[in-house]
Amino acid sequence: MRALTFQAPGEVRVIDVPAPELTGPGDAIVRVQASGVCGSDLHIYHGRVRIEPGFVLGHELVGTVEQVGDDVARVSVGDRVLSCFHTACGSCFYCLAGTYQHCTRRRVFGHGAAMGNLPGAQAERVLVPDADMTLRLLPAGVSEELGLFAGDVMGTGYHAIAAGNVRPGDAVAVLGLGPVGLCAVQAARAAGAAAVFAVDSVPARLAMAESFGATPVHLTEQDVASTIVAATAGRGADVVVEAVGDAAALGLALALVRPAGAVSVVGVHAERAQVHMGLMWIKGVTMHTGLANVIGHVDRVLAMMSGGVLDPGPLVTHHMSLDEGSEAYAIFDRREALKIILAP
Amino acid sequence: MRALTFQAPGEVRVIDVPAPELTGPGDAIVRVQASGVCGSDLHIYHGRVRIEPGFVLGHELVGTVEQVGDDVARVSVGDRVLSCFHTACGSCFYCLAGTYQHCTRRRVFGHGAAMGNLPGAQAERVLVPDADMTLRLLPAGVSEELGLFAGDVMGTGYHAIAAGNVRPGDAVAVLGLGPVGLCAVQAARAAGAAAVFAVDSVPARLAMAESFGATPVHLTEQDVASTIVAATAGRGADVVVEAVGDAAALGLALALVRPAGAVSVVGVHAERAQVHMGLMWIKGVTMHTGLANVIGHVDRVLAMMSGGVLDPGPLVTHHMSLDEGSEAYAIFDRREALKIILAP
Amino acid sequence: MRALTFQAPGEVRVIDVPAPELTGPGDAIVRVQASGVCGSDLHIYHGRVRIEPGFVLGHELVGTVEQVGDDVARVSVGDRVLSCFHTACGSCFYCLAGTYQHCTRRRVFGHGAAMGNLPGAQAERVLVPDADMTLRLLPAGVSEELGLFAGDVMGTGYHAIAAGNVRPGDAVAVLGLGPVGLCAVQAARAAGAAAVFAVDSVPARLAMAESFGATPVHLTEQDVASTIVAATAGRGADVVVEAVGDAAALGLALALVRPAGAVSVVGVHAERAQVHMGLMWIKGVTMHTGLANVIGHVDRVLAMMSGGVLDPGPLVTHHMSLDEGSEAYAIFDRREALKIILAP
Amino acid sequence: MRALTFQAPGEVRVIDVPAPELTGPGDAIVRVQASGVCGSDLHIYHGRVRIEPGFVLGHELVGTVEQVGDDVARVSVGDRVLSCFHTACGSCFYCLAGTYQHCTRRRVFGHGAAMGNLPGAQAERVLVPDADMTLRLLPAGVSEELGLFAGDVMGTGYHAIAAGNVRPGDAVAVLGLGPVGLCAVQAARAAGAAAVFAVDSVPARLAMAESFGATPVHLTEQDVASTIVAATAGRGADVVVEAVGDAAALGLALALVRPAGAVSVVGVHAERAQVHMGLMWIKGVTMHTGLANVIGHVDRVLAMMSGGVLDPGPLVTHHMSLDEGSEAYAIFDRREALKIILAP
Repeated sequence: MRALTFQAPGEVRVIDVPAPELTGPGDAIVRVQASGVCGSDLHIYHGRVRIEPGFVLGHELVGTVEQVGDDVARVSVGDRVLSCFHTACGSCFYCLAGTYQHCTRRRVFGHGAAMGNLPGAQAERVLVPDADMTLRLLPAGVSEELGLFAGDVMGTGYHAIAAGNVRPGDAVAVLGLGPVGLCAVQAARAAGAAAVFAVDSVPARLAMAESFGATPVHLTEQDVASTIVAATAGRGADVVVEAVGDAAALGLALALVRPAGAVSVVGVHAERAQVHMGLMWIKGVTMHTGLANVIGHVDRVLAMMSGGVLDPGPLVTHHMSLDEGSEAYAIFDRREALKIILAP
Repeated sequence: MRALTFQAPGEVRVIDVPAPELTGPGDAIVRVQASGVCGSDLHIYHGRVRIEPGFVLGHELVGTVEQVGDDVARVSVGDRVLSCFHTACGSCFYCLAGTYQHCTRRRVFGHGAAMGNLPGAQAERVLVPDADMTLRLLPAGVSEELGLFAGDVMGTGYHAIAAGNVRPGDAVAVLGLGPVGLCAVQAARAAGAAAVFAVDSVPARLAMAESFGATPVHLTEQDVASTIVAATAGRGADVVVEAVGDAAALGLALALVRPAGAVSVVGVHAERAQVHMGLMWIKGVTMHTGLANVIGHVDRVLAMMSGGVLDPGPLVTHHMSLDEGSEAYAIFDRREALKIILAP
Repeated sequence: MRALTFQAPGEVRVIDVPAPELTGPGDAIVRVQASGVCGSDLHIYHGRVRIEPGFVLGHELVGTVEQVGDDVARVSVGDRVLSCFHTACGSCFYCLAGTYQHCTRRRVFGHGAAMGNLPGAQAERVLVPDADMTLRLLPAGVSEELGLFAGDVMGTGYHAIAAGNVRPGDAVAVLGLGPVGLCAVQAARAAGAAAVFAVDSVPARLAMAESFGATPVHLTEQDVASTIVAATAGRGADVVVEAVGDAAALGLALALVRPAGAVSVVGVHAERAQVHMGLMWIKGVTMHTGLANVIGHVDRVLAMMSGGVLDPGPLVTHHMSLDEGSEAYAIFDRREALKIILAP
Repeated sequence: MRALTFQAPGEVRVIDVPAPELTGPGDAIVRVQASGVCGSDLHIYHGRVRIEPGFVLGHELVGTVEQVGDDVARVSVGDRVLSCFHTACGSCFYCLAGTYQHCTRRRVFGHGAAMGNLPGAQAERVLVPDADMTLRLLPAGVSEELGLFAGDVMGTGYHAIAAGNVRPGDAVAVLGLGPVGLCAVQAARAAGAAAVFAVDSVPARLAMAESFGATPVHLTEQDVASTIVAATAGRGADVVVEAVGDAAALGLALALVRPAGAVSVVGVHAERAQVHMGLMWIKGVTMHTGLANVIGHVDRVLAMMSGGVLDPGPLVTHHMSLDEGSEAYAIFDRREALKIILAP
C-alpha cells in the first residue's frame, strides 16, 4: 500500500509498504479515509524526534474498520471510526488511575521505535492495537475530516481546559493560537468561560480566535498583561493556557494569572527553563503540565462536536491527497496551514 | 415609604411603612430600582410559610446604594448593585466552608421573623446587612431587571449545575421548566453540556428551553425515559436536575439518570417521600439536594451574564409598578407569568 | 475438584465439579489458598438472589496463579495473588470513567448466571477472566487470609469513605458494624477523621470499633443523635456511612449528618423506602450510593494494608476447611462470625 | 507592656511599648500566654524582609481574650484562643473563593508596614483584627503551647498535604524536615499515606520523622531517588512535598515524583530558578505553590490535634521567657531549636 514515510530531516516521501496485518486479538485494521498533518509531525520532520528512515508517519485518522481481532468488542467491520493518537492497555497502574497518556504499554502512531514502533496513519491502512481503547465510532453529525480532531488536537485543547480546572464564569487566557491553542479557545468557551483572552502575533489566528468568541490580544502590539489585568478587575486570568512551549510563554503565563489561579501547560517543553518561582509562589499558582489525556476525553469531545458545542471546521485550511504528502509537510513547515487533511 | 406587604394568605397589599435605617457598621441602605416576584413568594402567599401580617415581601432586587455603614468596603454610595436573596456572616463554620446558604446568622429578605426578620425588597428602600457579602456591583452589560436574577433564580440554576458537577460533554436532563429549570437549562449549556433534555408539559416553556439550546421532551405526550435513554446510547443522562420538588419528579429523575450519574435536586422538598432506593443503589446514583449557594456563585453568574454566556432576558414576561403588587401576585399565582419585574 | 455449591435456600454443599480451564487470552486459573464467607453470600443462602443449584459460591479469594492466557501481563504463573470480587473489561464507557463496578461486561464470582455466570472462589481452583484488571499481587506484609479483604470487604469500607469524600479532620459516623462497617471505621481513621462514631447494638462489635479508634455509640441504649450532635459542636457528623441497608438506618443517617454534609450508603438497598426528603433538602445533604468500586481502590487498599494503615486482622473470627463449608454458612447465618476463612 | 522588637538585622530586643487598644468593632485584644519563634521570623532577623526598627515581632500565639469589639461573635472575654498568623476579611474575592491567604485586606502579625502594619505576638498583649476570622477557641485536649501550631506551622504542614491532594494509600515524599516538613510528615500519615519518605541530612530530624511513621532517607548518604523509586514499584512518589524552598529541592522533587503525580511546594521561593520543565512536562506533573491557607484549615487541624491524629508536641525543643527573646532568636538562628515557646 501507499504510505507517507520519514526519510531524513526535511524529507518525507510516499512509498509502497506492506499492508498491515492483525497481530493479536485486540487489534483492528482500519482503511484510512482522512489523516491529518500535525505540529508534532514537524518535530519529526525537523529531526528533533529520532525516528527510523522509512517509518510511516501520522497519528490523526478517520477511516473504516476492515478487520478486527477476536476480542474487539466496541467496533465491528464496516464501522466508521476515528482513532486516538496513541494506544493504552486499560489495566496498568496509570490506566486504572484514568491517566491513559501515561500507560506503560502506550504506543504512539507514527513516532518510531522509541514510542512503541507503531506505523502511522498517513497511509492507506493502519494497524490499531488495543482497538477497544483506541478507536471510537464517528458519531452522527461529525464529518470524517473533523472527526480526526477528536483523537488529537481538539482532545488536547479540551485537556488544557480540563487540566486547568476551568469552571463556568472563569476568565481564561490562551497563549499561542496554533491549532491546539485555537481548540483550547473553543473548549474554554464551551466550558463556560465568561471571557477568553487569545494571545498571539498572527492577525489571522487572532481573527479566528475572535470568531470563536475570544477577545484577541496582540502579543507585541498590545500590552498583554495590562489588557488582561484591566479586564479582570485588576486580578489577572483565573486560568492561563500555555500552548506555545517555551520559557517566554511560561513567564507570560505567570505574569497573567491571578493569585491562586492555574496555569495549564500543553505547549511541549523538553528543556530546562528559567522560571520565576518567586512570582509563582507569591501568587500561589498551580501549574499543570504534560501530554493530553485524549483517551480520557475523547467521548466527551465527540459528544460536544456532535452536539455543536465544539467545531474545529474553521481550522481546516488545506485538503490534499496522500500522494501530495511531501508538499503538505513543506506547506505546514512554512506555517501556511493550520490543519492539512490528507486523503489516501 | 411604600412597600408590598403580606396581610393574609392570598392577600398582599402596598402600604406605607417606615423607611429602613442603618443598624450596624456592615449595613447598607439601597434604593430599589427593580424587584422580582418569585416562586418562593408564592409559598408565603399561599400561607405555607408562616410570616407576620404587615411584613414587607420580596428577595430579588437591583438598586442604588444610598447609605453605608463604616465597615462596608465593597460598595459605596451611588453604586448600582444587586443583592443576593439572603445575607451571610462570612466567618461561621458554614461560611468558612464556602457553604454560605447554611450560614448560622443567615437572614432571608422578606421571609418573616423565622428567617431572620429582614424586611423585603418589594419596597422603595431596603436595609442590607452584611453588605460586603450580600451586595454586588451591577457589571457592565447587565441591565437592572436582569441583574436581579443573579442573586436568586439564575444563581439557583447555576447551582443546580455546579452541585451536580456537570462537566463539558455531559448529557443533562432538566425536569421542570419554571424559572429555575429554565435557568438550569441555560447554565447546563453554558457549562458545556453536549445535550440538554428539557422536560415539562407546558408548550411555551418547552419552546423557550428549545430556544436556549435544549431538546424539549413533553412530560406526558412523549415517553420521557425511552427518549432520553435512546439519545444517550442506552445509558441515561449523566446528570438530572430535579427542579420540581415532588416525589414524582424525583422518581423520574432516578429513572432517567445513568448508572454512576448524579441527580441534583433544586426543587424544594419539605416532606417525606417514597424513594426507589433500590433503583438508586443499583445505579450507584449520587443525589445533591438543598438551597442554592448563591453567594458562592454570584460573581461567576454575573461574569457569565456580562459576557453573554447566560441571559435570563426571555424569562421576563411582565413589567409592573410596585403599586400593582397585589395584581402581580395574582397573575403569578395563576401561572401566567415567568418573572414579573416590579418598579417602585 | 472440590467446590462449595448452592443447592437450595438454606442448603450449600461441597461437591466435585470439573476444574476450570482457560477460555481466552486474558484469563488466569488460580489455585485457591483462602476464600472468605461474606454477607453477600447470605443473600444467596437465603434465596434472595436467584442462582442455579450446583453453582459454585464465593467471591473473596487469595491463591497462586497456575495458568495464564497469552495476553495476561500483570501476573505470572506462581505469583501469589488476590482477586477483586468481580471482573471488568477496562474499555467500556464505565471503565473509562473509572467506575469499574458498573462495567457493562462485569462478571461477579459466585453469583449465578444473572451476574455473569462466573463460578465462585470457595473451591480448589477458580477461573479469573480479565486477569489484568481483576487480580493483584499480594504485597509484602499482607497475609493470605487478610489479602482477600482487599478485593471485597475492605475495598467496600474504603469506598464508603472515598465516596463520602471524607477529608482529614472530619467527624464521621458509621452506622452498622458488620464487617463492612468495621472496615469503614478503619478507613475513616486512616483517612484522617478526627472523630469516628461507631453505632451498633452488639457490644462486641462496638468494642472492636473502639479498638480501631472509634467512639462507640449504642444504638438503643444511648441517644445516638444527641450524643453525636453534642460531640460536634451542635452540628452533626460531616459524613455518615450507612452500612446497614434499611430505611431506619437511612433515616438515622439523615438525622445525624450536619447541614451540607454527606451520607455514604454502602448498605445494600433493593426496595423503595420512605425517605425524609424534607430533612435532607433543608440540610442540603449529598447522598452517595451503590456498590463499591473495589477495582478502582484495590491498589490503594493493598498499599495501606502493607503499610500498616489498615488491618482487617481482628475481623477474622473463624478458620475452617472448605469441606466444612456447609457448617460455615450456618455459623455465619447465625451471626456468630464476622469473617470465616475457608482453606481448601 | 513588654514586647520583643526588631531593631536591626541580627538584633531583636525586648522593650516597653504601648499596650494595644481596640480599633474597630471586629477587633479583639488577647493577653498572650505563649508565642512561638518561627522560621519566617528568621527572614526578618536576617534582614531579608524589610521591617521597621521597633516593630513587635511574632505571629504564633495562644492566649486569653481580654476585650472584644461589638461585632465579635465567635469569641468572648475570658476565652482561651489561638490565632492564625494573619487576618482575613471574609468577604473579598479571595475570601469568597476560600483562599484566605490571598485576602486583599490580609494583615500578617509581626511583619511590618508592608504586610499590614500589625504588631506581633511576642508581647504581653496583641491586637487581633477580624477576630471572628482569625481567632479560634482552644479545644479540649490541646495545650497552650501546642495550640499555637494550629494557626501557623501545623496549618502549613496540613496545607502541603491538602494542596498536593494526598489521598489515602498514596506514597508521599517530604523534602526538608524543619518544623513545616515534620508537620507535613504527620499530616501525610494522618491523611492515609501508605508510605512517607522523609528526606533531610540532619540525623535528629530524620529520627523524629521516623518516630512519626515515616521512612527516613538521608539526603547525602543515601541515593534518595533510587531508594524511593525502588520502594514505589519503580514509579516514584505520588506526591512530593518540597519544604525547603530552593532550586535544588525543587529539582529533587521533580526527580522523585511519579508520572502524573503532584509536587506541593510550601518551601518559600522568592527568586527565579532553573526548573527542568522538560522532565516536569514529560512526567505530566502538577505543581502547587504558595503560602498556606491556615484560616481555611485551622478548624480541621484543631479537630485532628484534639482527636490525637496530629501531635506537634515533639517539635517543642525550648521553653523560654519573653525576656529571653533575644537569646531565643540567636539559638533558633544557630539551628539548635525546632520550636521555641516564649512565655511573657
